[in-house]
Amino acid sequence: MEDKAQIQEAIQLQGEVVRKLKSEKAGKEQCLRSVLGVTVAQIDEEISKLLELKAQLGGDDVKQQSVLKTAKGTRDYNPKQMAIRGRVFDTITRCFKRHGAETIDTPVFELKETLMGKYGEDSKLIYDLKDQGGELLSLRYDLTVPFARYLAMNKITNIKRYHIAKVYRRDNPAMTRGRYREFYQCDFDIAGQYDAMIPDAECLKIVYEILRELDLGDFRIKVNDRRILDGMFAVCGVPDEKFRTICSSVDKLDKMSWEDIRKEMVNEKGLSEEAADQIGEYVSMKGGKDLAERLLQDQRMCQSEQACAGLTDIKLLFSYLQLFQVTDKVVFDLSLARGLDYYTGVIYEAVLTRAGVASVSNEGQNGAEESVSVGSVAGGGRYDGLVGMFDPKGRKVPCVGVSIGIERVFSIMEQKAEVSAEKVRTTEVQVLIASAQKNLLEERLRLVTELWDAGIKAEVMYKKNPKLLSQLQHCEELGVPLVAILGEQELKDGVVKLRVVDTREEVDISRVDLIAEIRRRTSQA
Amino acid sequence: MEDKAQIQEAIQLQGEVVRKLKSEKAGKEQCLRSVLGVTVAQIDEEISKLLELKAQLGGDDVKQQSVLKTAKGTRDYNPKQMAIRGRVFDTITRCFKRHGAETIDTPVFELKETLMGKYGEDSKLIYDLKDQGGELLSLRYDLTVPFARYLAMNKITNIKRYHIAKVYRRDNPAMTRGRYREFYQCDFDIAGQYDAMIPDAECLKIVYEILRELDLGDFRIKVNDRRILDGMFAVCGVPDEKFRTICSSVDKLDKMSWEDIRKEMVNEKGLSEEAADQIGEYVSMKGGKDLAERLLQDQRMCQSEQACAGLTDIKLLFSYLQLFQVTDKVVFDLSLARGLDYYTGVIYEAVLTRAGVASVSNEGQNGAEESVSVGSVAGGGRYDGLVGMFDPKGRKVPCVGVSIGIERVFSIMEQKAEVSAEKVRTTEVQVLIASAQKNLLEERLRLVTELWDAGIKAEVMYKKNPKLLSQLQHCEELGVPLVAILGEQELKDGVVKLRVVDTREEVDISRVDLIAEIRRRTSQA
Repeated sequence: MEDKAQIQEAIQLQGEVVRKLKSEKAGKEQCLRSVLGVTVAQIDEEISKLLELKAQLGGDDVKQQSVLKTAKGTRDYNPKQMAIRGRVFDTITRCFKRHGAETIDTPVFELKETLMGKYGEDSKLIYDLKDQGGELLSLRYDLTVPFARYLAMNKITNIKRYHIAKVYRRDNPAMTRGRYREFYQCDFDIAGQYDAMIPDAECLKIVYEILRELDLGDFRIKVNDRRILDGMFAVCGVPDEKFRTICSSVDKLDKMSWEDIRKEMVNEKGLSEEAADQIGEYVSMKGGKDLAERLLQDQRMCQSEQACAGLTDIKLLFSYLQLFQVTDKVVFDLSLARGLDYYTGVIYEAVLTRAGVASVSNEGQNGAEESVSVGSVAGGGRYDGLVGMFDPKGRKVPCVGVSIGIERVFSIMEQKAEVSAEKVRTTEVQVLIASAQKNLLEERLRLVTELWDAGIKAEVMYKKNPKLLSQLQHCEELGVPLVAILGEQELKDGVVKLRVVDTREEVDISRVDLIAEIRRRTSQA
Repeated sequence: MEDKAQIQEAIQLQGEVVRKLKSEKAGKEQCLRSVLGVTVAQIDEEISKLLELKAQLGGDDVKQQSVLKTAKGTRDYNPKQMAIRGRVFDTITRCFKRHGAETIDTPVFELKETLMGKYGEDSKLIYDLKDQGGELLSLRYDLTVPFARYLAMNKITNIKRYHIAKVYRRDNPAMTRGRYREFYQCDFDIAGQYDAMIPDAECLKIVYEILRELDLGDFRIKVNDRRILDGMFAVCGVPDEKFRTICSSVDKLDKMSWEDIRKEMVNEKGLSEEAADQIGEYVSMKGGKDLAERLLQDQRMCQSEQACAGLTDIKLLFSYLQLFQVTDKVVFDLSLARGLDYYTGVIYEAVLTRAGVASVSNEGQNGAEESVSVGSVAGGGRYDGLVGMFDPKGRKVPCVGVSIGIERVFSIMEQKAEVSAEKVRTTEVQVLIASAQKNLLEERLRLVTELWDAGIKAEVMYKKNPKLLSQLQHCEELGVPLVAILGEQELKDGVVKLRVVDTREEVDISRVDLIAEIRRRTSQA
């Protein structure tokens, strides 16, 4: 039998490997491969043999009781949450389309190597798939790297695209604050060689439009530039090799005090106190075009060509933002760093400055000073080098984009819906086909077929003889506005009793006119 | 060093297992577990030791050059494909909503144990995530099991929901025929204790409506019932323990000849020739309500209570299908088996009977006889036991549902779009703001801001001084219908030159009227 032979073979192969493994004392770690004489391929083979054997033994199906939960950091969406989510997506998609974007989709997993070396310290948060033989795969960590891979693979040099999809991070979930391990990103990116800062400004315009339209309370969009950060580090005396790690310290300024950041820089990362203090001066600066102009005059900053280039672009960016009429919410903030490795120019991040729910009543006051950040809802920047990392010849495609993270937005919208006691409909049913008497199932099915075929959203209860009361209750619960009631008399008269659920008004409508009447009465819905 | 110790330990443990394995001749298959004295846990441990060792050897990360591809069996969707996909989803979603469904969403991965024991032989196709510490996770294999888990977890006893999302199967991809490892399912399910066959019939009605509306050529919906299959196996003399494996042989009848299936049953699965021949008689039967009635009179079939219950339900089902006016496409087909373990009653599967593209010209003929199956596009059935598998107290929630698999549909739609040379628009831009002269960037940005704020879908080129020709070309390529051209003269006159891209007609429109004029001219789009 084939099965037995396979097991025998697996046993023999295992024995061989074990003999090899034993025949050598485990040598120095770095030359393990050659010392032991075992290859990765051999180990893979062993594993697949063992897996086969395991499958023959019945696999993992041993324990019987089931834990009834979703994976850590993930959640289901119930119909009400889906209705709210749908509205958020509609708003965002409408904005992306208004700005002329196409859309693409990429697989939920990529080759592991596609994601490697793109996220710096955050790489440890990537979900890997199990090696079941074949390629090594990882769940996408964001939509930007797959986008860059897509551009390189298809040799696309300019496109304006949006992509709304889930991404995966093995982070510490904080679900009450909208931080999940599976979450949506809504990305808008512009790829192509264009004149400076025009696409960058449009990305900020888009964030502005979306956050305003979602009506989540006041917000700020912080802007900075990687080149300004790097230039600043250079002129403050940060050694080159410490740029990234000092940058990731600065990135924590929205969560930690400057004192703690300074301690981390000096004590943990070995930065000189002097350098730390100079950085401290700069990262406290916030402003607009004027700040960029002032820093262009700054003796120390001017020593860095990079910083100057960044500041000049920030100045230009603000002039476009003025034309786009969004400068009231945009702040040039030298403390903004952003963790991801791949940014090369402008970076930005949008934060809600008050809880969305409470904000409505305070709208009149000038809230800018007393604003408290309740967290980032969008971020992005320019990444001119990423596509080149995928192109066999290193050809670069300049890109800038923004990612809207909407889990927090959902949380706020859900709260809002609850507070306002708004009745969120989860279906769009226009009419329920009901009967007041028994034995009318066939008539109900006949009528609902007519309505479906005419494109009316309609339901019947799946009972032969449902009670009229339970049919009406169903409508009240789900917000169905109309009930078409069939009875012996109505059938004889060739009419249907149309009941308006809200007002309980009832009118007899001729069967011939029913579809038009339903359409007329629900055309707003 | 810890690493060395671990390797030593791995080696020892391996040795032990191998010794155990060798100490026994591989015994009878069904008592492998006890005879060999090896447990699944031991094998798992071995595997994880080997994987550790592999990681120390550098894992698979040996090669440096980046392979520019998507994972095996997956693909990107480009903007044109997305436009077509969007249309398919719209059609399907519209139908689901017309039938009053709510929607939910579940995470892309589930606890591994949630999926275990639900898919029979297909379980081997499940993607597992790597054990990175924490829970053992798997990518969802379908949307049905997560739905059942959702119902049990939230103690929901009745709901009508749809769910459109990607599922994952480590199957052999055949991408040209629309078989992928990552693919969409569009599921519609009705959960609840209702009168027999009413929800079941609605599921078939939905398949009918969607396939008709997608206009993919002729199709058939095959219907059968698990109870009829099981009853048939019983009366044909199939031993109880062989039901599932014989069922999965029958399931291959659409891909293999009866002769080959018979060989498989008799030679590989040890079924008697007599039993096989009796099965062969039944599985060749196809018909409608009449066939169900005929089989209810069948001497042999009637010995099975199960089969009788199934046949009675099929009869009732067809009477509802008549009311729904879909019997022209539905066939009661005793060879339909469907692989999945969890079905308990009615099962069905829709197949396209000709390639969608070619079908149009032959529409007139009666194609039923000469129909050639080009593959299944929808399937489903009743699974009354699945929710109970998750409920701590085993409480059952009867469910019936259908899953539309749309990758094949996409393929056909794409072909169709190509054949018809139809220009698929990938954006919805109504107007491009262009300039005929230099130095009008600011004016363009100001105008496009006005339009965006009014909800018009509008674009500018991201160049300071783009050529008019390249601006017009952009519109032709992307199908943008209008160009608003700014020039010194127009600015002075307070007008915009509005150009209709198709006709090249140009008219001066006052700035005040521009928005209304653009709306008027693009209200159809």
